[in-house]
Amino acid sequence: MTTLKRIVLASRPDGTPTEDNFRLEEVAMPAPAEGEVLVRVEYMSLDPYMRGRMDDTKSYAAPVPVGGTMEGGGVGEVIASNSDILAVGDKVFGMLGWASHAIQPAKMLRKLDPSHGPLTAALGVLGMPGFTGWYGLTELGRPKAGETLVVAAATGPVGSMVGQLAKQAGLRTVGIAGGPEKCAMATETFGFDACLDHRAYDSARNLRAALKEVCPDGIDIYYENVGGKVLEAVMPLMNPHGRIPVCGMISWYNAGGLGAGATSETLTAPALWRNILVKFLSVNGFIISNHFDRYPEFLTNVAPLVAKGEIAFVEDIAEGLENAPAAFLSMLRGGNKGKQIVKVS
Amino acid sequence: MTTLKRIVLASRPDGTPTEDNFRLEEVAMPAPAEGEVLVRVEYMSLDPYMRGRMDDTKSYAAPVPVGGTMEGGGVGEVIASNSDILAVGDKVFGMLGWASHAIQPAKMLRKLDPSHGPLTAALGVLGMPGFTGWYGLTELGRPKAGETLVVAAATGPVGSMVGQLAKQAGLRTVGIAGGPEKCAMATETFGFDACLDHRAYDSARNLRAALKEVCPDGIDIYYENVGGKVLEAVMPLMNPHGRIPVCGMISWYNAGGLGAGATSETLTAPALWRNILVKFLSVNGFIISNHFDRYPEFLTNVAPLVAKGEIAFVEDIAEGLENAPAAFLSMLRGGNKGKQIVKVS
Repeated sequence: MTTLKRIVLASRPDGTPTEDNFRLEEVAMPAPAEGEVLVRVEYMSLDPYMRGRMDDTKSYAAPVPVGGTMEGGGVGEVIASNSDILAVGDKVFGMLGWASHAIQPAKMLRKLDPSHGPLTAALGVLGMPGFTGWYGLTELGRPKAGETLVVAAATGPVGSMVGQLAKQAGLRTVGIAGGPEKCAMATETFGFDACLDHRAYDSARNLRAALKEVCPDGIDIYYENVGGKVLEAVMPLMNPHGRIPVCGMISWYNAGGLGAGATSETLTAPALWRNILVKFLSVNGFIISNHFDRYPEFLTNVAPLVAKGEIAFVEDIAEGLENAPAAFLSMLRGGNKGKQIVKVS
Repeated sequence: MTTLKRIVLASRPDGTPTEDNFRLEEVAMPAPAEGEVLVRVEYMSLDPYMRGRMDDTKSYAAPVPVGGTMEGGGVGEVIASNSDILAVGDKVFGMLGWASHAIQPAKMLRKLDPSHGPLTAALGVLGMPGFTGWYGLTELGRPKAGETLVVAAATGPVGSMVGQLAKQAGLRTVGIAGGPEKCAMATETFGFDACLDHRAYDSARNLRAALKEVCPDGIDIYYENVGGKVLEAVMPLMNPHGRIPVCGMISWYNAGGLGAGATSETLTAPALWRNILVKFLSVNGFIISNHFDRYPEFLTNVAPLVAKGEIAFVEDIAEGLENAPAAFLSMLRGGNKGKQIVKVS
């Protein structure tokens, strides 16, 4: 084993990315320096935020340089250690990148607790997406029993965490997902009270009419992770004093730099702003990496629920590093069912 | 004295209101029923929110009915009392309307403390506008020493309160106002570190370039009361973790129902939303009438500052109830210098 494989950003996408934007490389295996370890990646995570890293528009995180390894979280086993902190055989989580192996300072890795379920849980339900759902809902959504919550990408790892926690808090939960199969998963597996298939509505107006039927008391919390048509449909249905945690807007990502060039046919900036004013909305953007100090609290609260089966999770596992680009592009189109993961080794 | 005068809404405006939308009426003087008092109005307040009440678009407050007396706060003297709570001669504040006299339940009126300065202070610096500025800044703006604050309508009763409180909290304060005379008032009377004349910039882009010069460290708090060009100029300059309390958007009010029909040339809804996400902004709409429980706290904190001259205030007093519509229309165009009041008697 003298080489490692990695996937680099071959070129920046112009709109929707294609497989041509990625390139598989094989390079010499490095050795860990003082304080570092070598990790064999077993599973890597694919997440919507990676789309943003492919553009060089100014954003909250630096872009991946052209020719650089695609960023991402992964889990794996330490196979060589030059550190007192981690030993060979330890299972760890870290920002290992789209690669078969990774060299990292040991202090940048988190040793995994086997009692927290399968290794892959650290990438989804107990990892960054689950934590994002928990933080945004509890801290910014401030759910109260009897209220109504709406979340899109309802079967994804963020949406399904949000929906299940809200349900446990006594809210009516309404999901939005792409296709009848995902909608069935939302209600059957994740306990949503209702789920709408956004593909069944050709306009924000039609989606709004359907939402109105399943949200007879209006919407108190809209957990925003998609933007676009769903946001347009939801806004007029928000109740006074509603809360909107904003952690993403995937539907606009392909319009350049996290939606910098996106347009909206029916929703104007004044209309959006007016809703915030006249309904006393609380809209809060956040990125979970600013809140890692809360991760232990999340794990303490949610890991037992996952262990007891009170929080369900679904994973969609693609095989092989070389298939990561295709799986990523499929995920951006909503092709995944549950948390998208790639089995690397 | 057998009649009272009042100004009613003659018709709903189509866009910018005109004097034709108002009508002066003289009607028989009513007598106070059990628990009520009769107040001779001395001064009445003119505020931007009244523009919203002239439309019948759904909003946070019911519209004034066509033929109904225009709503508004006023101060005056009790001249007949059918209540144990208030005596003839008491000076009171209440929602007295655009009228020479008003009948009100005594419990709906607030008896004024003469130590809090002139009667008119209850309409501005120590009334609803000053309270709005204080609440929005302290509760939703969460100012920290060393930060930069921007507020428009900087010489108005809300903007001047916001600017002075922020300055006292150690912030750099930048005002925006219409015309060189108001800008001079902002820096000289209200202590703003800088003030930009929005009329001197023909586009949001130009205003933004000028703002960037006077906000070298970006903007941490944008106290939103105008919308439009100022919002467009400010948004890209917001710092991460910035706060935007939203209490109004006067520049869009004439486009129907608090801006329901307004458009924005350069700012799209996705761009606005994207800024909230990538800068982790906290945007909170509010109306001060939801927070009257905090009014005593405001008075305790701010009335002494006003008495000591540490919070300055400027009033623009029009003469005569019959001139209220013209003064109101002028205020909507920015014609007032300081808090707009009408001396009724």
